[in-house]
Amino acid sequence: MDYNATTPLDSEVIQAITEALQEAWGNPSSTYVAGSKAKAIINESRENVARMVGGKAEDIIFTSGGTEANNMVFHTAVEHFRRNCKAAEQGTGHGNGCSGLPHIITSNVEHDSVKLAAEHLQREGKADVTFVPVSKVTARVEVEDIVAALRPNTCLISIMLANNETGVIMPVQEICNRVRSLNKQRQQVRVLLHTDAAQALGKIRVDIHELGVDYLTIVGHKFYAPRIGALYVNSPGMKTPLYPMLFGGGQERNFRPGTENTPMIAGLGKAVFKDKLHFNSHYPGSDILPNTCNVSILGPTLQGWRVLSNCKRLLASVGAACHSDSGNRPSHILLNCGVPSEVAANALRLSVGRGTTKADVDAVVVDLRDTVKLLEEMN
Amino acid sequence: MDYNATTPLDSEVIQAITEALQEAWGNPSSTYVAGSKAKAIINESRENVARMVGGKAEDIIFTSGGTEANNMVFHTAVEHFRRNCKAAEQGTGHGNGCSGLPHIITSNVEHDSVKLAAEHLQREGKADVTFVPVSKVTARVEVEDIVAALRPNTCLISIMLANNETGVIMPVQEICNRVRSLNKQRQQVRVLLHTDAAQALGKIRVDIHELGVDYLTIVGHKFYAPRIGALYVNSPGMKTPLYPMLFGGGQERNFRPGTENTPMIAGLGKAVFKDKLHFNSHYPGSDILPNTCNVSILGPTLQGWRVLSNCKRLLASVGAACHSDSGNRPSHILLNCGVPSEVAANALRLSVGRGTTKADVDAVVVDLRDTVKLLEEMN
Repeated sequence: MDYNATTPLDSEVIQAITEALQEAWGNPSSTYVAGSKAKAIINESRENVARMVGGKAEDIIFTSGGTEANNMVFHTAVEHFRRNCKAAEQGTGHGNGCSGLPHIITSNVEHDSVKLAAEHLQREGKADVTFVPVSKVTARVEVEDIVAALRPNTCLISIMLANNETGVIMPVQEICNRVRSLNKQRQQVRVLLHTDAAQALGKIRVDIHELGVDYLTIVGHKFYAPRIGALYVNSPGMKTPLYPMLFGGGQERNFRPGTENTPMIAGLGKAVFKDKLHFNSHYPGSDILPNTCNVSILGPTLQGWRVLSNCKRLLASVGAACHSDSGNRPSHILLNCGVPSEVAANALRLSVGRGTTKADVDAVVVDLRDTVKLLEEMN
Repeated sequence: MDYNATTPLDSEVIQAITEALQEAWGNPSSTYVAGSKAKAIINESRENVARMVGGKAEDIIFTSGGTEANNMVFHTAVEHFRRNCKAAEQGTGHGNGCSGLPHIITSNVEHDSVKLAAEHLQREGKADVTFVPVSKVTARVEVEDIVAALRPNTCLISIMLANNETGVIMPVQEICNRVRSLNKQRQQVRVLLHTDAAQALGKIRVDIHELGVDYLTIVGHKFYAPRIGALYVNSPGMKTPLYPMLFGGGQERNFRPGTENTPMIAGLGKAVFKDKLHFNSHYPGSDILPNTCNVSILGPTLQGWRVLSNCKRLLASVGAACHSDSGNRPSHILLNCGVPSEVAANALRLSVGRGTTKADVDAVVVDLRDTVKLLEEMN
């Protein structure tokens, strides 16, 4: 009962790692087959990891783990502040808020890789840090306390998504909403937003658009993946600053050089890909009917019509009954709601009613699982 | 023909990694069995890696790879200089050489993880760097050129042990000898010595005592081990400064926090342990007789007398014939020469003569290999 410390590896993850060790041992930067095989695995994994958090492949920077990812964010925030002030002195960039040290806001219940990174910057005289205490009533950090701690020099807010000891989920989304509004009014360089999602991933829904963060820390070994990490950055170097801590051979677009750890990256991608469900009716701030579940099972052969026509017991639809003459095209409702077309194509609209029992739902789950297995094997 | 880019993994290494993935998945910091198993594997690997370069287990800091190890050395040298100057201002420590920036000497043929780390410090105004050009005649960096580049502010010399493109071996030992003498006369903080041994390990003998370096970079994937690295530091934090770049959960004695990558560390330890030979007659600066080979095959059941008594064809001794009445005790000659007693206990003194043919030597190698296999299986 210590899954928050680490998790055993999924057997399919071990298999992916072992295969990569044997077959994709080439240097991913080499141009011949052994290298390009490794490169392809890394690219696929990057896409899977990105999809897990709702981002783009180019937003994912692989790191050695969560510690490095968290430290990189703190390093970047201070460096960004420094460069901005330097630019301001030279007449470009935001000038205000440049007298004094950069200021960082975090909570008093963060993991040591945030806490000690912050304390180090403080001790070295490189940043001021406010450790906002969590409420002793809710064990959450309160949004108003974060907002109250903001200063003209604040360059970063880093709040974990879920606590590793209590499991309490922090109001990261609300904090980001408030700070994004404030950012628009600020004369100074905007406040960057980071969450360490190490404990949340694989346990609750994590979506960077819903959360509204600039950075999100991903740690493989907390969700049945190996000891490797990644940092989600919203368009690194474009929309969001990212300054490397290491210098070398140019891997990870120079943001994090060093020959890529192909097998561990393969394992991470595999663990992530196990989560193949996309819920098409989850939208930030919107409630949904308690009887409706619009879900896509992701995969190239798992279009909604194909899944339903192979199910033995499940009777459901891929969209509104009145559009059933639209054939196998994805629902324009889902497309209009922003669901990507390859996801919408796999949508199943499941709705239960007065006569539905828990046993019915269980039977449908079994039916769907068997059908997906069959369709994937036929592929 | 690109083994210098990376190497395929040894099958025994893959097996060690896979076993660790399956059985040693626990967090090495956890106190129950799954954790302590991981801890034990890491400790064993640390000892093996240390033995490979002739150091002590506590001198090995595992890193994500060579890039990180190299960057850590540069970070440390500059930080050490800065702290020393600060201490000097406050009346302690070496005062001289504190006006101006720290100065680093390296060559103009280093790997990007040294070159770009140095250029970054230079560009940021954190250090001056001299890139000593290699001789166009020898493709080696010349010892005298390094010595001539020394300044009062010099805090680090970093010269690769062997070049990754030409294979040329650099005179690291001679440089260290010269600088060690100069260090004794210096009023200033001593010049730290680093070599990136990424390309040398597994190809030539690498021994930190012979070389005389303070830091040595180890890169697994260049010698049939996985994508992980280590930094050898001569008594880190005691004899040799080491300042972390990352802050977190205290792993690697706070020098390099982050949950340890047990399977990759296991693989590194396994790859290293494949090199089970210790040559008891190799000493820095000493020539040896061309017919004599005093060698220990390392392992708990491979005492010299045991190996010899199980060999089918090999006739040899464990030491001088006149001491053959000393039984199974290790040779006091070897002990007096500084060979550790568990290594000396496994010594075989092999000496060839006028009548020995190449076929005889080949037969002895086969005989020894079979015997070692037998004794290890009996264990």
